[in-house]
Amino acid sequence: MTSRDGFSWTPQEGLKPGVPSLGVIQPPTNITSTAKYDLIVVGAGYCGLTATRDATLAGLNVLLLEARDRIGGRSWSSNIGGYPFEMGGTWVHWHQPHVWREISRYGLSTALESSFDFSRGVNHFRLNSATSSTTRSHDDEDKLLASGLEKFVNVDGAHGRNIMPQPHDIFHNEQSRVFDSMSAQDRLDQIANDLTPDERTTVEAFVLLCSGGTLSNMSFLEFLHWWALCGFTYQGCLDMLITYKFRQGQSSFARHFFQEASKTGRLSYSFSTPLASIENSSTGVSVTTRAGATFTASRIICTVPLNVLGTIRFDPPLAKGKQEAIGIGHVNQCVKVHAEIKNKDMRSWSGITHPHNKLVYAIGDGTTPSGNTHIVCFGAAQNHIQAEEDIEQTINAVEALAPEMRDIQRLVFHNWAKDEFAKGAWFFSPPRLLADHLDDMRARHGNVLFANSDWAVGWRSFIDGAIEEGTRAAAEVVSELLNEPGVARPNL
Amino acid sequence: MTSRDGFSWTPQEGLKPGVPSLGVIQPPTNITSTAKYDLIVVGAGYCGLTATRDATLAGLNVLLLEARDRIGGRSWSSNIGGYPFEMGGTWVHWHQPHVWREISRYGLSTALESSFDFSRGVNHFRLNSATSSTTRSHDDEDKLLASGLEKFVNVDGAHGRNIMPQPHDIFHNEQSRVFDSMSAQDRLDQIANDLTPDERTTVEAFVLLCSGGTLSNMSFLEFLHWWALCGFTYQGCLDMLITYKFRQGQSSFARHFFQEASKTGRLSYSFSTPLASIENSSTGVSVTTRAGATFTASRIICTVPLNVLGTIRFDPPLAKGKQEAIGIGHVNQCVKVHAEIKNKDMRSWSGITHPHNKLVYAIGDGTTPSGNTHIVCFGAAQNHIQAEEDIEQTINAVEALAPEMRDIQRLVFHNWAKDEFAKGAWFFSPPRLLADHLDDMRARHGNVLFANSDWAVGWRSFIDGAIEEGTRAAAEVVSELLNEPGVARPNL
Repeated sequence: MTSRDGFSWTPQEGLKPGVPSLGVIQPPTNITSTAKYDLIVVGAGYCGLTATRDATLAGLNVLLLEARDRIGGRSWSSNIGGYPFEMGGTWVHWHQPHVWREISRYGLSTALESSFDFSRGVNHFRLNSATSSTTRSHDDEDKLLASGLEKFVNVDGAHGRNIMPQPHDIFHNEQSRVFDSMSAQDRLDQIANDLTPDERTTVEAFVLLCSGGTLSNMSFLEFLHWWALCGFTYQGCLDMLITYKFRQGQSSFARHFFQEASKTGRLSYSFSTPLASIENSSTGVSVTTRAGATFTASRIICTVPLNVLGTIRFDPPLAKGKQEAIGIGHVNQCVKVHAEIKNKDMRSWSGITHPHNKLVYAIGDGTTPSGNTHIVCFGAAQNHIQAEEDIEQTINAVEALAPEMRDIQRLVFHNWAKDEFAKGAWFFSPPRLLADHLDDMRARHGNVLFANSDWAVGWRSFIDGAIEEGTRAAAEVVSELLNEPGVARPNL
Repeated sequence: MTSRDGFSWTPQEGLKPGVPSLGVIQPPTNITSTAKYDLIVVGAGYCGLTATRDATLAGLNVLLLEARDRIGGRSWSSNIGGYPFEMGGTWVHWHQPHVWREISRYGLSTALESSFDFSRGVNHFRLNSATSSTTRSHDDEDKLLASGLEKFVNVDGAHGRNIMPQPHDIFHNEQSRVFDSMSAQDRLDQIANDLTPDERTTVEAFVLLCSGGTLSNMSFLEFLHWWALCGFTYQGCLDMLITYKFRQGQSSFARHFFQEASKTGRLSYSFSTPLASIENSSTGVSVTTRAGATFTASRIICTVPLNVLGTIRFDPPLAKGKQEAIGIGHVNQCVKVHAEIKNKDMRSWSGITHPHNKLVYAIGDGTTPSGNTHIVCFGAAQNHIQAEEDIEQTINAVEALAPEMRDIQRLVFHNWAKDEFAKGAWFFSPPRLLADHLDDMRARHGNVLFANSDWAVGWRSFIDGAIEEGTRAAAEVVSELLNEPGVARPNL
């Protein structure tokens, strides 16, 4: 099936909207009645899928409403000739607890492969800075990035271990709060004299890769949080952030959740069904779709991302703190572009081109069925492009990454910045949003629970955080409704 | 409540069997009928508790049978004056996916504390070898252990990364099989000329701490597996194996699982109910208790440890491969002894005394309500003691750890070696058991599923592995027993 989401470009066919994906569900709805549900889940990303799966398994009758024509939210794969291009969230690791629990539970712990293959080809790292262009070995790449990042995070003489000993509790050490008031730029200014020019270039590129923002609008604390989650080492960042992906693509994984929920017989769903409003009352909740349909339930789990929550009208209005958080929003406008190139030797390539290019960081990510090398490229809000608006500019940005980056056979991407149901990529906090509003973002609103990776406490912004949040919200709803009369119970 | 399990000793009262624990459940049974259950779960350790919780939440009527008078199996805490002494499995970490998913789901991610507190007192590491006794800083302790262990695991020039890239799939690289035929002693012999005497002493002590076996009967591959799970660094081993514990003790955590299952109204249970036999038939299963009671169900999840499975009669008999694995068994005869001493400064102490002492490795683990320092001490099958049989010998072994180890106010321990329902501590594989029989141990027997941390694929031997296995088995049973009503289904 083909989703409306995403774009592909080839020299022969030019730019085309929509790409095939295993995440498109047919038929788009199975709703047969307008009876009151136990639970409405809004959004079929990993958070909503997890909540739906857990709640249906626990005996609740669930209505899942999704604005898109597919599952997966900000993590989905297109499937072109059997080859998965990851349009958003991609990499997972066994040190990410919630997603790994699901990978294990679905028997998929051997379904992963490494993005990196340094066994053949150029096997080098290219660094294009403002003033020089050099290549070096991947070992030297690792040493350069480790050295720079260790200086960047070393606010406590222990590479962050003392300031954030428990990464799921970012303010465990109260002294960490000062770092939430700082941007990455503020921290770079503090250590300006300690970094070599190459360290500076690569640290800037790496933190922009993480945030998708600008150096000035990304919270330094949130980067420390990522670093702490990764075990306080660059090797941990490599392992946990950018190495292991599903051989069959994210959408193949997301289908397990949907199918398991479906098999309970307690799942109603409707795709291409964006909401206009959510009403909370003392007896339950109702939602009204943009098309004017109304559904009622005892509870809602709303998994709409922070940057999109403002497009839904809440009655009564949301609490002031949550409204303020929505008004601030997160800063991630990551540009992710897949490029197929003919040069087979580039499979073992990686590179950084910064600060003059619109794509900053890229790696060889696979070999396509045509035998081409698949390169995945990242840009950020700093030096931002809308990839489909000027495809020549996008091609130029890919070609600027390395001299070998020629003969582009295909581009595949999803423009998350212009996606009305995402308004950005994964959450990345600006300064002070976490200290001021993390609790607000997590707070419920009567019978409406809010669950999203954007305000997870552990791997916030990751698939793991989405599952963490969906798990939490479903457990809360199930616990409440099990004690309410008249709620359906499983009868097996 | 007081469990029959465990021992305490004080100068005033001498040796007493049984210690108080939050894990003792009252009343000991709630069985009111002998109707056929959907599922019988045998064993109320974390594996059985997880399976019971998941299955009751999914609507199954479950009978939980436990031989002991308490939940928790090989992981439970005594509670003496409000202070938890961990009698078995203790430490957890956010990189252990299954246990962390549960910690997060129960809202306990801020309920942990570090065993280590180097903020005051002696703040040193003592190394008593056969020929010398020295103290050094904890930083130097870490450097010594890191250096020795890196040599120990460096079979591939990459500290094990190449030989075991995916630790939940130990034979992912087929070349790893050769290391399962080797013991720790075999590997030590290979690198005998590379280790300094202090490295050798500490490496031996550390791997005995992990295995609870002897250097000759523990699989080198299984140690590589632990190392890989810990991110291929000694720092990772410290973080993930021996740092974070529950402020309120393991039994406080285990109660969440039991209580959640209980609240569904679908949990029947009986403690102090060891089994004599398990019978499988085409229509279901039945169990007969040692007391002669019989219960029937559609499925059984048997969570009895490998070393105990041979005490239960199976009809029809178990498959040959599983019988062989049971005949081999695992090698862990860990001796874990808690000692309260008056010296407050020892809170920041750690030490290794090897190879001449019956307790090999110990750390300051807390401060008790009386203001005493709590030291936790470990011995192994090598130089083994039965701690309660000769309490003077046990006291001597504690005192031999350091000159400051005087004025012992209390000992607390569980003799796992003589426990008929454990026959050892956490699983540790002898050479070749994993290569020959891991699949056999995991295989089902008709309607009997076997689930235990002993044969988990990830954090095998850990609480995490127990939850991994309970999750897997419950999902399998629920999926099989799920009644699929004829509703509109998506076309997947």
